[in-house]
Amino acid sequence: MSSGIGNRVKCTIFGESHGKAIGCVVDGLPAGENIDMDEMLVQMARRAPGRDKTATPRSEGDYPEILSGMLDGRTTGAPLAMMIVNHNTRSGDYEDIARTPRPGHADYTGHVRYDGFNDIRGGGHFSGRLTAPLVFAGAVCRQILRRRGVHIGGHILEIHGARDEGFDPVKVDAQLLERLAAKPFSLIDQAAEGLMREQVKTAQKNMDSVGGIVEAAAVGLPAGLGSPMFEGVENRLAALLFGIPAVKGVEFGAGFGFASMNGSTANDPFDYDKDGNVITLSNNNGGILGGITSGMPLIVRAVIKPTSSIPQPQKTIDLIDGKSAELSVRGRHDPCIVPRALPVVEAGLALGLLDLIESEKKGG
Amino acid sequence: MSSGIGNRVKCTIFGESHGKAIGCVVDGLPAGENIDMDEMLVQMARRAPGRDKTATPRSEGDYPEILSGMLDGRTTGAPLAMMIVNHNTRSGDYEDIARTPRPGHADYTGHVRYDGFNDIRGGGHFSGRLTAPLVFAGAVCRQILRRRGVHIGGHILEIHGARDEGFDPVKVDAQLLERLAAKPFSLIDQAAEGLMREQVKTAQKNMDSVGGIVEAAAVGLPAGLGSPMFEGVENRLAALLFGIPAVKGVEFGAGFGFASMNGSTANDPFDYDKDGNVITLSNNNGGILGGITSGMPLIVRAVIKPTSSIPQPQKTIDLIDGKSAELSVRGRHDPCIVPRALPVVEAGLALGLLDLIESEKKGG
Amino acid sequence: MSSGIGNRVKCTIFGESHGKAIGCVVDGLPAGENIDMDEMLVQMARRAPGRDKTATPRSEGDYPEILSGMLDGRTTGAPLAMMIVNHNTRSGDYEDIARTPRPGHADYTGHVRYDGFNDIRGGGHFSGRLTAPLVFAGAVCRQILRRRGVHIGGHILEIHGARDEGFDPVKVDAQLLERLAAKPFSLIDQAAEGLMREQVKTAQKNMDSVGGIVEAAAVGLPAGLGSPMFEGVENRLAALLFGIPAVKGVEFGAGFGFASMNGSTANDPFDYDKDGNVITLSNNNGGILGGITSGMPLIVRAVIKPTSSIPQPQKTIDLIDGKSAELSVRGRHDPCIVPRALPVVEAGLALGLLDLIESEKKGG
Amino acid sequence: MSSGIGNRVKCTIFGESHGKAIGCVVDGLPAGENIDMDEMLVQMARRAPGRDKTATPRSEGDYPEILSGMLDGRTTGAPLAMMIVNHNTRSGDYEDIARTPRPGHADYTGHVRYDGFNDIRGGGHFSGRLTAPLVFAGAVCRQILRRRGVHIGGHILEIHGARDEGFDPVKVDAQLLERLAAKPFSLIDQAAEGLMREQVKTAQKNMDSVGGIVEAAAVGLPAGLGSPMFEGVENRLAALLFGIPAVKGVEFGAGFGFASMNGSTANDPFDYDKDGNVITLSNNNGGILGGITSGMPLIVRAVIKPTSSIPQPQKTIDLIDGKSAELSVRGRHDPCIVPRALPVVEAGLALGLLDLIESEKKGG
Repeated sequence: MSSGIGNRVKCTIFGESHGKAIGCVVDGLPAGENIDMDEMLVQMARRAPGRDKTATPRSEGDYPEILSGMLDGRTTGAPLAMMIVNHNTRSGDYEDIARTPRPGHADYTGHVRYDGFNDIRGGGHFSGRLTAPLVFAGAVCRQILRRRGVHIGGHILEIHGARDEGFDPVKVDAQLLERLAAKPFSLIDQAAEGLMREQVKTAQKNMDSVGGIVEAAAVGLPAGLGSPMFEGVENRLAALLFGIPAVKGVEFGAGFGFASMNGSTANDPFDYDKDGNVITLSNNNGGILGGITSGMPLIVRAVIKPTSSIPQPQKTIDLIDGKSAELSVRGRHDPCIVPRALPVVEAGLALGLLDLIESEKKGG
Repeated sequence: MSSGIGNRVKCTIFGESHGKAIGCVVDGLPAGENIDMDEMLVQMARRAPGRDKTATPRSEGDYPEILSGMLDGRTTGAPLAMMIVNHNTRSGDYEDIARTPRPGHADYTGHVRYDGFNDIRGGGHFSGRLTAPLVFAGAVCRQILRRRGVHIGGHILEIHGARDEGFDPVKVDAQLLERLAAKPFSLIDQAAEGLMREQVKTAQKNMDSVGGIVEAAAVGLPAGLGSPMFEGVENRLAALLFGIPAVKGVEFGAGFGFASMNGSTANDPFDYDKDGNVITLSNNNGGILGGITSGMPLIVRAVIKPTSSIPQPQKTIDLIDGKSAELSVRGRHDPCIVPRALPVVEAGLALGLLDLIESEKKGG
Repeated sequence: MSSGIGNRVKCTIFGESHGKAIGCVVDGLPAGENIDMDEMLVQMARRAPGRDKTATPRSEGDYPEILSGMLDGRTTGAPLAMMIVNHNTRSGDYEDIARTPRPGHADYTGHVRYDGFNDIRGGGHFSGRLTAPLVFAGAVCRQILRRRGVHIGGHILEIHGARDEGFDPVKVDAQLLERLAAKPFSLIDQAAEGLMREQVKTAQKNMDSVGGIVEAAAVGLPAGLGSPMFEGVENRLAALLFGIPAVKGVEFGAGFGFASMNGSTANDPFDYDKDGNVITLSNNNGGILGGITSGMPLIVRAVIKPTSSIPQPQKTIDLIDGKSAELSVRGRHDPCIVPRALPVVEAGLALGLLDLIESEKKGG
Repeated sequence: MSSGIGNRVKCTIFGESHGKAIGCVVDGLPAGENIDMDEMLVQMARRAPGRDKTATPRSEGDYPEILSGMLDGRTTGAPLAMMIVNHNTRSGDYEDIARTPRPGHADYTGHVRYDGFNDIRGGGHFSGRLTAPLVFAGAVCRQILRRRGVHIGGHILEIHGARDEGFDPVKVDAQLLERLAAKPFSLIDQAAEGLMREQVKTAQKNMDSVGGIVEAAAVGLPAGLGSPMFEGVENRLAALLFGIPAVKGVEFGAGFGFASMNGSTANDPFDYDKDGNVITLSNNNGGILGGITSGMPLIVRAVIKPTSSIPQPQKTIDLIDGKSAELSVRGRHDPCIVPRALPVVEAGLALGLLDLIESEKKGG
């Protein structure tokens, strides 16, 4: 009902942060696709905590164990099931949470939704840790897409005001995307790294956290993918991306920037390139017109809210006493999850696009 | 596959701009619900062209004809089917479009998607006219929701830089929302109207168009609605709202504003109100935490891109000649569809929330 | 929620027997498909009451009006909406039904399901009349399938003990199926007609009704269609066929006959035909193995229960008095709907198979 | 796409017979439900091979390991994931199958469907072993249903002509069903056991196999569950039951017996019982009218075809040589899987009914 998505390539994610295991089942993958596990681990490492110097030192040591759906390194067409066993879960850190819900987190709403029976430890099924299976699924899809000429990548566009330059929506290409997709702290202009890390350090020093924006793109998509109204590319990708904890906004192409534009600028004029292919001279629509791909680069951005678990004392309530209370969240929490959220957004994009291509069988 | 959405309250929209009729089927509505047709027509009038002085003078004279699902003014529980017959369609205006696709519109992508067989007249199934059935469906849902204590409304937040004040996300209430929902050009502070209309007029004079942002809210929702990951409130509403032509971005609560915030500010502290209900003292999360309603007002914004059909000449291609071409779009097109898009966004919100409440049967 | 089905080619049926109109929306049809309306009317006539000498003399005069999704005789790819206006509805005939539910009919269960708000007139949304839009949808799909080499047809296998011979599951071919599909009282061996009509007449004379079995087949399907477990061909077709009122059992190939067979007989030995194609020498599995087509003829049977509306007095209850009551159903009811159910079953088969082929894009 | 089913309580099954593990994810279960693992193991034992004297001596030693969704013996509301590790898989037994497909099995159709990349070992994802996770899921649902007053059970109605008596469709009650559901070789009249076992032994002696019919029932369902047309109880249960390998027919109530009945007998007269509840005096409709429960016992039957893997030589093809071939299936295969199929059918019934109740929230 809740933790699955997709029409033809369907992904169901399971697990709780401090339970026995987390994982996913990806059903409907094409058969005979070779999956390079090393490349997949690169994507999982980009998301993993503690791999980057500004992230917390917790090491998950997560290894995805394939339970079914692969034989001799290739997909069999049967559901691909994967499990990551949870280790070293220090549940003691979360003792207070059951009665004093963390502001900005799903502790309270999950409590109401599940009548108090949800596994609160480490955030349970709401934990950011549940994005690991999504990165796995996305990494599988990304490899299949690449063999069909579709390349996906992204970069950190902003952390608390510090910005990288944005994608050139007309010129972004496979080479740039693949280069970005191999990095742990992906930026188009590496010069932005210093200022961004500065923002994170300042927040950490203040026992606080910061948010940001990630920007991802896909190139090589054929024109004509997607269906009108509710099965358009934007609908389907947004439904996926809002499944990533902390994402509170999604925009395509010029996005909210359209609000201050004129049609004469916003419209992307059509033309033919030198090979006779239809192109647009600008790409404010981010490769999507009427919910359908135009063949131009697909551009999407997602805003990542500041980590809600912060060490400084916060006002909350005591659900047992029924009184106001104060909470200082302990435990290992990144002051900024934006770099780690980027591969998750890319994974969502990969999963959504492969589903779309397999559903519509229009090139790819 | 494409023009339907919903888990339990499911809406399928049909029709083409210059075809015989447009309409919808809403399946899964609760039985025995009284539907006030006059109130429904108010919503349809808010969306209709020519009802407002800055919109074009075309009068649709659309009247929704109920085909099934109602008896003696009440829903029967069977699918509610509605049809609006198309009148006075001047197809001659669109002769060029089949060969010279309008920039910014779905003419080209629809052509590729449907191998040239799509009904191009008036934009066919991609026309903004197809939002009329969505407003109908939303108006039905809105009435049912109100009887369950849920109120929905919205306002024009911005047109080409001219802004109304935003909702106070903590204090927005049923009275304000119902007042806004009854107006044709909804603003919290009516003072913004002059400057907004100025923007539209200037665009019109320049044979151009302008975009903007609409903001909508729902109050009275119980806490605990929505499911984690891909069936959260945000996922489901975004999947609906991106079905509205011209929407290119959707955000909840502080939305993209989170990018420059700290966690200490972004987090909404919990407290009890004087009646012992759980509230949050701020509402940056727009009433949704972990994909689940918190009981605070739900706040959503959607950006509406400038009308793509503009009278001034634009660069495009001739699909038959295979050469560059120039196009001047004739016909009746609003220089700004933001005011008319607002009731459509509210309708999407109403449809999505009733579906959610009926799916989860958690209060409402 | 209820009256729609399909993954990629999705059909939603609306209407109530004595409401304004009945109809359907078929979403996801391939674009550019020519639809021959005359041929379609042949199928609708096979289902219509009063066209055959043993059916009741009521003439529906139903004409399907296309509302959208077709242009110049071809599908546009947008939802195909169709409406049949209801004429001459004599609601007076059904006055008693609201308080004295007809045995064997959905009057009582519909009343409970919809809290008494369902349209009871003529059976409302539960009426057999709602199969007319399904026949329309199936007739559209049948024409598309034929152009892909898939032919569908069926015959009356049994009416109250009087039997036609069954299909030869290995040899049934396109020619036989097309011949049967053009007839109003389809039989392989026309000699069975007399005895069958005798059964119907006897029942009519006794103010009673009779049931029967219809058998349908599809040939020309490629091997490899369908997915394991819950998306197999059998699952999907059964989900459709049980949507036809009066169907209480569905079986494939030898069906319930397997219960008394040995594996050595039941198993269909593989072989190559003279062109090197894989065939099976028998076809007890009805063209489906593991939920996936084998390339052999698909054979399905559905049992049709006796018309529940019979003129003779029956024991029932009075829902208002809360007492036992007696009911004599008046109005026009066929003593045997088996011949009219056959084209509906064929339509379900056509709709299900086109959906499957479009979903999986494996030949067709 | 294929191995998942359900609207609100959704079950996805993964695994391949000789892969690392099989299992399932059940998403959408109500939170706070206590699950008795011992009782669950009773159900899994009923399905397991080698537990009964006429079954083959292979011992799976399967233990379902809960990966997520349970805490302190209760469901948390998050997806319930379960895994059974595969042991002692003797893949050598299946070496020939890749080139000489077993008649009556999915070897050939799976090969075509997955372009030869499917895991053929032990039948892969098509193996009857994949019903173990379904029994697990069903056993969980069964316990939840029982607390809501719904009881499920079944018996072997027929093995190769040897029959148990059928359920009395009016009088079948919770006590009988619970008694049957606790047994390994469930019969209403134990006297039938001897003759049935005789049939199995004879088949085994002849290096052959036999089929049969299982009959299951559910009592305690409220009236009014199910939706018309394609979301009726019959549609949804059939879609589930045809997911069980070897099921080739499904019927409700009198099922195919309706073909030789008159309406006057087939119709179930309504009456009030002594407590004023609406009942029917007969129950030929098996508790379902118009796709909606009547409150009477739900009766369903499924035919199980003879085990397709038989030791005697069979005619088949050699896919590599492209010539006719002969195959003697080795390995451990039951000559009759009917007794083991019964708990699987009951599990499908439990899963389908809980999904329905949770979807519609109409009593339960």
